Amino acid sequence: MGERIYNFNAGPAALPLPVLEEIQSELLDFKGSGMSIMEVSHRSKWFDDVINEAIERTKRLLGLGDDFDVLFIQGGASLQFCMIPMNLSLKDRPVDYINTGTWSAKAIKEADIQGKDVHVIASSEDRNFAYIPKEYQVSKDASYLHFTSNNTIKGTQWAQFPGAGDIPLVCDMSSDIMSRPFDAKPFGLIYAGAQKNIGPSGTAMVIIRKDMLERTPDNLPSMLKYTTFSGKNSMYNTPSCIVIYTINLVLKWLEETVGGLEKMQQINGEKGSLIYDFIDQSDFYKGTADKDSRSLMNVTFRLPSEDLEKKFVAEGLKEGLGGLKGHRSVGGCRASIYNASGLDAVKALIDFMGDFEKKEG
Amino acid sequence: MGERIYNFNAGPAALPLPVLEEIQSELLDFKGSGMSIMEVSHRSKWFDDVINEAIERTKRLLGLGDDFDVLFIQGGASLQFCMIPMNLSLKDRPVDYINTGTWSAKAIKEADIQGKDVHVIASSEDRNFAYIPKEYQVSKDASYLHFTSNNTIKGTQWAQFPGAGDIPLVCDMSSDIMSRPFDAKPFGLIYAGAQKNIGPSGTAMVIIRKDMLERTPDNLPSMLKYTTFSGKNSMYNTPSCIVIYTINLVLKWLEETVGGLEKMQQINGEKGSLIYDFIDQSDFYKGTADKDSRSLMNVTFRLPSEDLEKKFVAEGLKEGLGGLKGHRSVGGCRASIYNASGLDAVKALIDFMGDFEKKEG
Repeated sequence: MGERIYNFNAGPAALPLPVLEEIQSELLDFKGSGMSIMEVSHRSKWFDDVINEAIERTKRLLGLGDDFDVLFIQGGASLQFCMIPMNLSLKDRPVDYINTGTWSAKAIKEADIQGKDVHVIASSEDRNFAYIPKEYQVSKDASYLHFTSNNTIKGTQWAQFPGAGDIPLVCDMSSDIMSRPFDAKPFGLIYAGAQKNIGPSGTAMVIIRKDMLERTPDNLPSMLKYTTFSGKNSMYNTPSCIVIYTINLVLKWLEETVGGLEKMQQINGEKGSLIYDFIDQSDFYKGTADKDSRSLMNVTFRLPSEDLEKKFVAEGLKEGLGGLKGHRSVGGCRASIYNASGLDAVKALIDFMGDFEKKEG
Repeated sequence: MGERIYNFNAGPAALPLPVLEEIQSELLDFKGSGMSIMEVSHRSKWFDDVINEAIERTKRLLGLGDDFDVLFIQGGASLQFCMIPMNLSLKDRPVDYINTGTWSAKAIKEADIQGKDVHVIASSEDRNFAYIPKEYQVSKDASYLHFTSNNTIKGTQWAQFPGAGDIPLVCDMSSDIMSRPFDAKPFGLIYAGAQKNIGPSGTAMVIIRKDMLERTPDNLPSMLKYTTFSGKNSMYNTPSCIVIYTINLVLKWLEETVGGLEKMQQINGEKGSLIYDFIDQSDFYKGTADKDSRSLMNVTFRLPSEDLEKKFVAEGLKEGLGGLKGHRSVGGCRASIYNASGLDAVKALIDFMGDFEKKEG
């Protein structure tokens, strides 16, 4: 086996090493079953324990009461973009969206395709999505207000979530779920593709407030109704067992090794301060997001030229730092430092950035 | 680590041991990337090679020409039940279905929900789905004819596929894909949840004839259009990387270790003869499917009483034979003997069945 690298991929992303080691050690025989976790029946006690543990850990970590269901639905956040308006839009009432970049725009597009009355009540498109909008007016009769809590491509993040009074918030939290504690009360639905902060690709976690389930229309296809998943503990059909199992191990690591979300938030804050302070004292590197909108998960920055950026990414990889290229739609550089990227990874990155600047600056 | 059992689960089901061992050996470092296959970007060359290899192996194994696309779509066969009528039904033309049990019925239900003109042109419901219908008349103007090639719950299988002239066949092959070679020409679409014969749960393989793509309506949600998956090599959004990777290893095992589908068919034939010959010579065990409709994948049988069936399942597990309970909807016993269950598993099962009969018969 070769050496593990520091993995700054935006998603799929780094997983905690102890999680990978546990999967590896029991891959041929899950808990004495004589089968791999990929081979046990989803109707068995073995798997029931796994999925229920993942749900309980999610509820404990986020402080969710019994008024929330935790669901696992395949198809990523992208399938949620269409399921949300299908299930949660109310007759003759608009759906509100805030546009903070590519992923918000995709969510808006899928509501549009369905002919919903979409109100984009705020957007940061005027300055290439470099900031989180501060001014917005929620439609009085909105079905919900949708926003994206962290924008992987533009490197921005809502430091404080928007307020919408009694209108339920709906949030794509794919890239910062479990990175900090928050009050779930104003949320009707929270969803997150697993492959950034909580597991491998192949499943979205959907947290739905139970009163939202009453909105699901009867005539939807079974696999597109939240009620189908809620009524069968996400096992109307076979779920992605290996992905849910891995999510549970990541959540266990969060609870038992990290020590919960307050602690995780503190570590993520330290990581963010280190890298942004370094960028701010440098004339060579330049952050792309407004300071008050910066993401603690995805650090986006530019170098003086595209040639230097290419060289930076290539030399980084040679030094064991992978995934530093910006999203193909925007260019530049990006270091994704999700929960599983520790202080050591950020320090290694800063060391490399310092050396590179000395050599090329 | 404990001992591996003989796994007769209906799905998720046994995987070839060499496949599991390969996953285990490279779980922390995929091909020198310094990352797990769960951590590499789906936009990287590493994963591109994996998905393209899986597609090429599928095409070689099934003898598919360039007129077919191979897609990977999350949500299992159950999501396909709704995507098929959404994408492939033609205006003012019926959709034909043959009902051979639970899974056919679910496919029919999803076409009904969408208000399609569903013609169930044949059914074996009159005798509890114990046989494959021989008589049916395809609607002259049908959009397609849908059938289920193998019925896991009732233990029946189409020995020869139905003919429908120029009407494209659409087939749920979840439980017998890659178990035998066949001529793909009459098929407009073939789909299979991976978790029975080709991998772990979490992805359906969809094989679509390219002319079918012209039927997709423009106004469908992006994630429910076959054209979205076809146009982006199944990577419009992040696919289930670990599942596609495992499918590729199973297909590699089929090609390189087993030696292709003719060879696989021969082995499956031997396994089927062994177990059915044993059942037929016994007065204690009784097969539930008509002889000419028997499945080579799922062997369903009864014992003289439900108490004996319970005892049989429990003692089997003690002897290292797992998953012998029939589906919760029908009771009885069932041994699923997919590709990854070898002759040794079937022989061990027959030995146990003989001993049990001697003791209890």
